[in-house]
Amino acid sequence: MSEKAPWITYRPELKVLDCTIRDGGLINQHQFTDEVVRAVYETCLESGIDYMEIGYKNSAKIFSKSEFGDWRHCDEEDMRRIVGDHDEQEKRLKLSAMADAGKSDWEQKIGPRSESVLDMIRVAFYANQVSEAVEMIQHCSELGYETMANLMAVSNVKETEIDTVLEKIAPTAAGAMVIVDSFGHMYREQIDKLYNRYAQAMEGTGKEIGIHAHNNCQLAFANTLEAIILGANRADATMAGMGRGAGNCPMELLLGFLRNPKFKLRPIVKLLQEHIDGLRESVEWGPLVPYNLTGQMNRHPRAAIEFRDSEDKDDYVMFFDKLVADI
Amino acid sequence: MSEKAPWITYRPELKVLDCTIRDGGLINQHQFTDEVVRAVYETCLESGIDYMEIGYKNSAKIFSKSEFGDWRHCDEEDMRRIVGDHDEQEKRLKLSAMADAGKSDWEQKIGPRSESVLDMIRVAFYANQVSEAVEMIQHCSELGYETMANLMAVSNVKETEIDTVLEKIAPTAAGAMVIVDSFGHMYREQIDKLYNRYAQAMEGTGKEIGIHAHNNCQLAFANTLEAIILGANRADATMAGMGRGAGNCPMELLLGFLRNPKFKLRPIVKLLQEHIDGLRESVEWGPLVPYNLTGQMNRHPRAAIEFRDSEDKDDYVMFFDKLVADI
Repeated sequence: MSEKAPWITYRPELKVLDCTIRDGGLINQHQFTDEVVRAVYETCLESGIDYMEIGYKNSAKIFSKSEFGDWRHCDEEDMRRIVGDHDEQEKRLKLSAMADAGKSDWEQKIGPRSESVLDMIRVAFYANQVSEAVEMIQHCSELGYETMANLMAVSNVKETEIDTVLEKIAPTAAGAMVIVDSFGHMYREQIDKLYNRYAQAMEGTGKEIGIHAHNNCQLAFANTLEAIILGANRADATMAGMGRGAGNCPMELLLGFLRNPKFKLRPIVKLLQEHIDGLRESVEWGPLVPYNLTGQMNRHPRAAIEFRDSEDKDDYVMFFDKLVADI
Repeated sequence: MSEKAPWITYRPELKVLDCTIRDGGLINQHQFTDEVVRAVYETCLESGIDYMEIGYKNSAKIFSKSEFGDWRHCDEEDMRRIVGDHDEQEKRLKLSAMADAGKSDWEQKIGPRSESVLDMIRVAFYANQVSEAVEMIQHCSELGYETMANLMAVSNVKETEIDTVLEKIAPTAAGAMVIVDSFGHMYREQIDKLYNRYAQAMEGTGKEIGIHAHNNCQLAFANTLEAIILGANRADATMAGMGRGAGNCPMELLLGFLRNPKFKLRPIVKLLQEHIDGLRESVEWGPLVPYNLTGQMNRHPRAAIEFRDSEDKDDYVMFFDKLVADI
């Protein structure tokens, strides 16, 4: 039995990405007050977080500006309203936006990095969209951005298809390939197998492996730790786990665990108290029973989100019966 | 890379113990209505749970009957009020009570199994109480009960002391040695090391390894799974994770994960809806920020429980500063 205690040391290469506004915005159609977005930004700076994902670069044709808030589109002037020119802070905190394949006018709407406060574009895609994703990565990379490749809903993709995606991503400029458990379905042995699959496919390319977990089965933090233990050097989290449906890996748990002295927990505790707890008055997230059930059954959380919006929202048995009948 | 998927098969030896009333009772001084206790009992029967821990066998001198409910003492007539003579059900569901070393008049208050509805006594003890624990196990075993040995707060015990405890427990009649993370501090690599330590010490004794996890860092379910993956065949959980402070491994997550067809999830979903959700109106449990913090710092949840009972209960920063100053 090894007597080493790796949990009291740290790996300097491990970088943490906050996606509170981006993923949390899926609950409120990205209609955050400037005060909240600014508070998250300041907190990221103070707590030593490496990346903040401030929203989506998605199409205003698909997501109209009347219905969706600024963080669905991340227009340059909107971001600058919060972060100014972000010049001095850039060394400590990089800004990121996510662009979805099929939902983003990336050729028109993403300008050169030198003219943007953004440092990174993360490309999110389903397996069948990998060819567009490769073009998007290429395009953004040529514009000077760091990029990451996020294959979504991987618990629903067959291994042979995953292998094809990984083969396509491997030669691109993406800095990381991210394990994305959109349905919050996976547990540690599945994370292990995926990590090994991703790491093997990326061997020799210099790419890092990332992890983006959802909390349907209260495993988002555990799965994030698991990927980190195996060697993942990019970890996503959100403040109070705020995110669609069951939410994400809670930043306060991740940063309270990591031992790199550059990470500070106190600013996050303060943010939760002053800005995030209050959001629960108007929006709901977390590992509630309906999200447990869709997670266990490997379903998109959509049905549970709709259910929690309905009059029957506490009739768990009705929801359970509906899900089972639906198999 | 192995292509096996162990998560869709099961291990028949794995037995699940519900301790909702016993551990959950630490929030409300064991003052449950008979209706709730009966509903948990019926649910355990319907869902295929193997053991139900109905309360503590603790001293009425230390825990007065005026202040504490029936499930702190588990007098025979009180249990029979709920479960009748439990004869027919015994083949499907065994009943358990926990006796704490130092807080239990076990020589006087635990009678022969043949005269009780109880099938098992679990002995809970701190490392320095191991000698009394061994006597208690011996006594209860001679009275005909199954027994388990629960070394509490193990995250605060040095390895050399753990080894001495394990050496004392190994020759006893206890059917299982349980890993108990009372502070909700541990994560997977620590569970791994403890599991290996416990399993090695119990080798050849026929004892099973058990797991009792707390949810301070949202790792109770993950740590329970981890112990199960390694070979633990006794797993504790509670309905909705109800338990002191951050609570326990949620039964709905554990049973939704296990693939033994004898386990049924629907009765549990029904219980949550009809009986457990409503309890939140009068009592609080779950992985709230103050419990995250005591868990991360390896402290007893006591300070967080008191804090959540105070006027300042949402002033997380005050609590954080107090904990840090207290190191």
